[in-house]
Amino acid sequence: MDHFFAPASLAVYGLSSKPGNTPRIIVDNCLRWGYRGRIFGVNPATDETDVGGIRVVRSAAELPVAPELAVVLIPARYVPAAVEDCGRAGITRLAVQSGGFNESSEGGMALAAQLRDAARRHGIRFVGPNGLTLADTASGLCLPFVPSFPVRHGTFSLITQSGGLGLFLWNLLESEQVGLAKFASIGNKLDLDECDVLEYLATDPSTRVIGLYLEQIGNGCRLVELAARIDKPVILYKANTTEAGSRAAMSHTASLAHDEAIIDTACARAGIIRIHHLHDFITTAKAFDLPPMRGKRIMVMSPAGGLGVAMADDCEQAGFAFADPGQAFYTELAGIANAGIIRLGNPLDMGDLYQIDKYPMMFSHVLASSEVDGAIYASQWPRMPAGGSDVFTAMFTTDISLELAGAMRSADKPLALVLYGDAPVIAALKARAPLPVFDGPEEAIRALRRQMDFHVHKAAGPLQSDTPPPWPRAEEARVWLNARAGLVGEEGLELLGLYDVPSPPALVARTAEEAEALAERIGCPVVLKVVSPAAIHKTEVGGVLVGIGSPEEARRGFTRIKDNLARHCPGAELAGVRVMAMAPAGLDFFIGGLRDPSFGPVVLFGSGGILVELFQDVERVLCPTSTAEIRAKLERLKAGRILAGMRGQPPIDPEPFIQAVGNVARLLVDCPRIAELDVNPVRILPTGALLALDARMRVLPPPSP
Amino acid sequence: MDHFFAPASLAVYGLSSKPGNTPRIIVDNCLRWGYRGRIFGVNPATDETDVGGIRVVRSAAELPVAPELAVVLIPARYVPAAVEDCGRAGITRLAVQSGGFNESSEGGMALAAQLRDAARRHGIRFVGPNGLTLADTASGLCLPFVPSFPVRHGTFSLITQSGGLGLFLWNLLESEQVGLAKFASIGNKLDLDECDVLEYLATDPSTRVIGLYLEQIGNGCRLVELAARIDKPVILYKANTTEAGSRAAMSHTASLAHDEAIIDTACARAGIIRIHHLHDFITTAKAFDLPPMRGKRIMVMSPAGGLGVAMADDCEQAGFAFADPGQAFYTELAGIANAGIIRLGNPLDMGDLYQIDKYPMMFSHVLASSEVDGAIYASQWPRMPAGGSDVFTAMFTTDISLELAGAMRSADKPLALVLYGDAPVIAALKARAPLPVFDGPEEAIRALRRQMDFHVHKAAGPLQSDTPPPWPRAEEARVWLNARAGLVGEEGLELLGLYDVPSPPALVARTAEEAEALAERIGCPVVLKVVSPAAIHKTEVGGVLVGIGSPEEARRGFTRIKDNLARHCPGAELAGVRVMAMAPAGLDFFIGGLRDPSFGPVVLFGSGGILVELFQDVERVLCPTSTAEIRAKLERLKAGRILAGMRGQPPIDPEPFIQAVGNVARLLVDCPRIAELDVNPVRILPTGALLALDARMRVLPPPSP
Repeated sequence: MDHFFAPASLAVYGLSSKPGNTPRIIVDNCLRWGYRGRIFGVNPATDETDVGGIRVVRSAAELPVAPELAVVLIPARYVPAAVEDCGRAGITRLAVQSGGFNESSEGGMALAAQLRDAARRHGIRFVGPNGLTLADTASGLCLPFVPSFPVRHGTFSLITQSGGLGLFLWNLLESEQVGLAKFASIGNKLDLDECDVLEYLATDPSTRVIGLYLEQIGNGCRLVELAARIDKPVILYKANTTEAGSRAAMSHTASLAHDEAIIDTACARAGIIRIHHLHDFITTAKAFDLPPMRGKRIMVMSPAGGLGVAMADDCEQAGFAFADPGQAFYTELAGIANAGIIRLGNPLDMGDLYQIDKYPMMFSHVLASSEVDGAIYASQWPRMPAGGSDVFTAMFTTDISLELAGAMRSADKPLALVLYGDAPVIAALKARAPLPVFDGPEEAIRALRRQMDFHVHKAAGPLQSDTPPPWPRAEEARVWLNARAGLVGEEGLELLGLYDVPSPPALVARTAEEAEALAERIGCPVVLKVVSPAAIHKTEVGGVLVGIGSPEEARRGFTRIKDNLARHCPGAELAGVRVMAMAPAGLDFFIGGLRDPSFGPVVLFGSGGILVELFQDVERVLCPTSTAEIRAKLERLKAGRILAGMRGQPPIDPEPFIQAVGNVARLLVDCPRIAELDVNPVRILPTGALLALDARMRVLPPPSP
Repeated sequence: MDHFFAPASLAVYGLSSKPGNTPRIIVDNCLRWGYRGRIFGVNPATDETDVGGIRVVRSAAELPVAPELAVVLIPARYVPAAVEDCGRAGITRLAVQSGGFNESSEGGMALAAQLRDAARRHGIRFVGPNGLTLADTASGLCLPFVPSFPVRHGTFSLITQSGGLGLFLWNLLESEQVGLAKFASIGNKLDLDECDVLEYLATDPSTRVIGLYLEQIGNGCRLVELAARIDKPVILYKANTTEAGSRAAMSHTASLAHDEAIIDTACARAGIIRIHHLHDFITTAKAFDLPPMRGKRIMVMSPAGGLGVAMADDCEQAGFAFADPGQAFYTELAGIANAGIIRLGNPLDMGDLYQIDKYPMMFSHVLASSEVDGAIYASQWPRMPAGGSDVFTAMFTTDISLELAGAMRSADKPLALVLYGDAPVIAALKARAPLPVFDGPEEAIRALRRQMDFHVHKAAGPLQSDTPPPWPRAEEARVWLNARAGLVGEEGLELLGLYDVPSPPALVARTAEEAEALAERIGCPVVLKVVSPAAIHKTEVGGVLVGIGSPEEARRGFTRIKDNLARHCPGAELAGVRVMAMAPAGLDFFIGGLRDPSFGPVVLFGSGGILVELFQDVERVLCPTSTAEIRAKLERLKAGRILAGMRGQPPIDPEPFIQAVGNVARLLVDCPRIAELDVNPVRILPTGALLALDARMRVLPPPSP
């Protein structure tokens, strides 16, 4: 992929000297950016032989070398021919900027197919179409077709599905002193996608932080797998989170909305930093320009007491703890305090410490303390009358950014500098400061928290375990499924039994007499439940009778259920009545499963009652998972606190439930034909032992041979 | 109060020509700001007669006129004497900037008392101490003792409890093109407080938006009453929201933390706009610089499709609806679209509409549509090579701010302009643009939403009704309370009965025989409950027996409760056993009450079970309240959805519960001796009728005569 970002030679299709020729902007950009490779123009529709010094040919085959990369920004209908031209000339890499493919119309869909086919035939890989494609500050390649000055070089690389948004971010990075390494606007990603670029950037030495703007996640499993193994922070903005966003994306890059919670689950596992505001690309990148924050203890400092109070609130909300640099530190400070009016603590109100030359000592001592993991300092650079000799002028107009950076580098701990003030002065200071400058404490604190979470997550390693040995009864399960397709009801409990999810003893009676005999065999009390393809919702057709106390009663119950079914669903077939031992009292939870088109099997679990309906108190795990991961998520669940014992109730052992969730996860992995699954209720007994009382699942048809 | 902000003459205490003299900075500021009143210096410790042209005297009594305002910035220990000096000279208004009073130490507390006493004696009103006090861009008064250039004049006035933070905000306003009207840094507010200043600003013609930074709310009731009746937006940042923030505030302005939820409740009632990030002062003030957004229908526009998608997400999250300007509008646009690649809709991707000269027409038509309540447009102003004749250069470097403002003023609907780009260019554009420029769509959308909510709230009028007629049995209730103080248990149900909150028939038996007779009289089943001052938690001492089926059983139950009490609390007195009719099955809710030191009586209500414990599913109303307000809050409660009927249950009439909450609110208002109250459970029967089953309250001792 190196040759995509730093090609030794470049062919620009459509170049001409006509006014408004956009390929010409590409050439100009590359020249401005200092691109050192050879540049050629290719334009079958021109008689020109050179444009602004660049040699132009009618077909790439006429060129003295096969360019390592071609960029195509011509009307969509000419693109397939250009790809053919490239293929014949031996060009194997393309950046297709043209729009008008699958994102636009039916004709566009056909063109997209032609593009893909032509590329495949010639062994060509390509970025796009409908994207600004590539830029690289190191090689000087700058393909986006908007006139551009060279941008600040740096270590932030951006992968974006939207070209326009990519340019916005690019300009924002520039004015916020975050330097760019590589830029990839992947558009409709008909060939190379975000994962391909991500995999490349993972080992790209010039990239330290990766930003990802996506409207649609193609291969979620691969994304999670890649990000989990990359040691660089990956910051994801996933647009298209709401119904309205989704509507816009449908027409923008032909995207499909995802289940938000599943994306969150995936990000949590992979250590992907998910942001919800575009500006957080900048703030988060800035935070990663600081040394890692390895723990939660923060020191909050400001010459404005009120700002210290506000920052303390933000820190507490972000989950930081307040560091205690120790009495010796405060005693030292008290010695240089002015009037001794202000009590010293954390947050540190520096309003009484007017000696700006003592600040570096303070920062150095704070960060050197073994009780401190990081710090935040907010000050201002107001527009002040010049030349005053008063303490305020000294305090507010002395540049101590070098000392701040020094203390930080020496301690290898982060110090987030927040600076308010006169916009032009701050802009100039940002451009030359040796450390990032944040615009407000809120953004700095949130970004620092993300940075800390990333480092802690990477240090802890993945929660999900290595591949366990194959499940001994997986084959049995597949055989069980072979006989079935479509909606499967309560008999699904048999399948769950194969994965050690127990349910009460149950047998199906075909006649009233059989019901009596089975009740005798199973032991009363029992529950009777209708078995009929017509009775999806058993209760609603009068198909469930609980607390059957004697075999005799079971016999009568069979007849009653039969009559009820006949009344509610005339003509429905009664396959039988399930006689099930009645479960003891306990707490009702549920376990669900589904197969996400992007992220694969996902298991959900929670309490089965109003907690889910009113509060969406549900946790999710991607599969495969591990008991450690399930346990951690169960502890986060509000319903988990019911198991832990509340309102004076004794705690209930959660392990059998954790095991059951894990087993359902294995079932979903082993049996890809299960599209959806709902085990509900799962009765948890006071001992922790559990019983699945009912189940429903949707089974895909077997793959055609 | 006019004379505080625009005094005809000003005395500056402590003025001298010594280097580092801070009162001198005050004089310089006033001169720079163009203050036109007379200025004098007062300094008993100097022989100087003039400082930089300002006449200096040793006592204000020597001045030719009594200045309308004196500013005091001298060490705290000299302040009481200065106040005396003012009083003798007939000065009646003071701005006390000195720190070292009640915020600092015990000695400071004594000085605070002296300051207050001296002022009272002389009929002096003052702002401060420990604040930067006052500034007014119209009069040119600029007392804050930090060297300051004149700031942009405008209509935003700020009341702040922290001087340092006030300066931060002041500088931030300045660089964000939000002009300042008046500034009041009220510090420890020993005399004049936020409400006094707020009341003044309410009718101040130069003020259109009021910002309030508080660490502690003194008189919450007055604040709510004032803000509710002011037609200007009041934006509140209440610091000190978390434990850590609270710790810092204790040492900063001697503040006490408030119950956050009660502040939210108060803000909701008063229409106060509560913000949680300092920067939102700026963004919200900008939003109020736009015409009012009178409905939810927004049009989202951007030349970057991806940004449109992101903005659509933000709009949906903020609760906006997507306007439909109609097919005629889109057809018109399609006529000027370039390649016809992009589908037109809302959000409107303008990526294909390169003709910048057509933009004003678009904005004008969008805002003129009766289907549109407001719009947001995001673009960029990147750093581009100059002089290009391409469409991009035209699109990105044509200033259309005048046309945007024109469309907005013509339609009297808001258009929020978001502009990314090269910092110096944007800063310059902000300074000259005829409309506010937002830095990002998120902040613009949130601010627009706050603006809309304010206008909708003010248009709807208050939910709480006028004062109802006095409660007929209020005197009976006060008599009942006269006999009691401290913790009152279940007998409190009698008091609730006086306010029409019913409970099951109940009588207290002193003997086992009496229990039998009462059970007979009340009718079984009954519940037996211990009555004993020692048994606060009745269940825990075995003091509750439910489901007593016969009078005979009641007799045995009495003895069992007696034995249980003797075993659990040896020596405890058994005052009797309450025999209560057993309530039918139903839903258990609760009603609570407390008296907030700042906001007065507050009633809380919600479901009594795990919903409250796990999810804090509680609503609050300030008292007095109205059934309309309670009904609206009950509908917001998740538990309210249980009453409305879920999981196939029939709905339950909520009115009796609403009535009961209203009656408890009246009880709290009528009986100020009730400090806290808990009616729990309140059993709601399937008909909606309810029964209070237990109660506890804390009754304050009667006021000493």
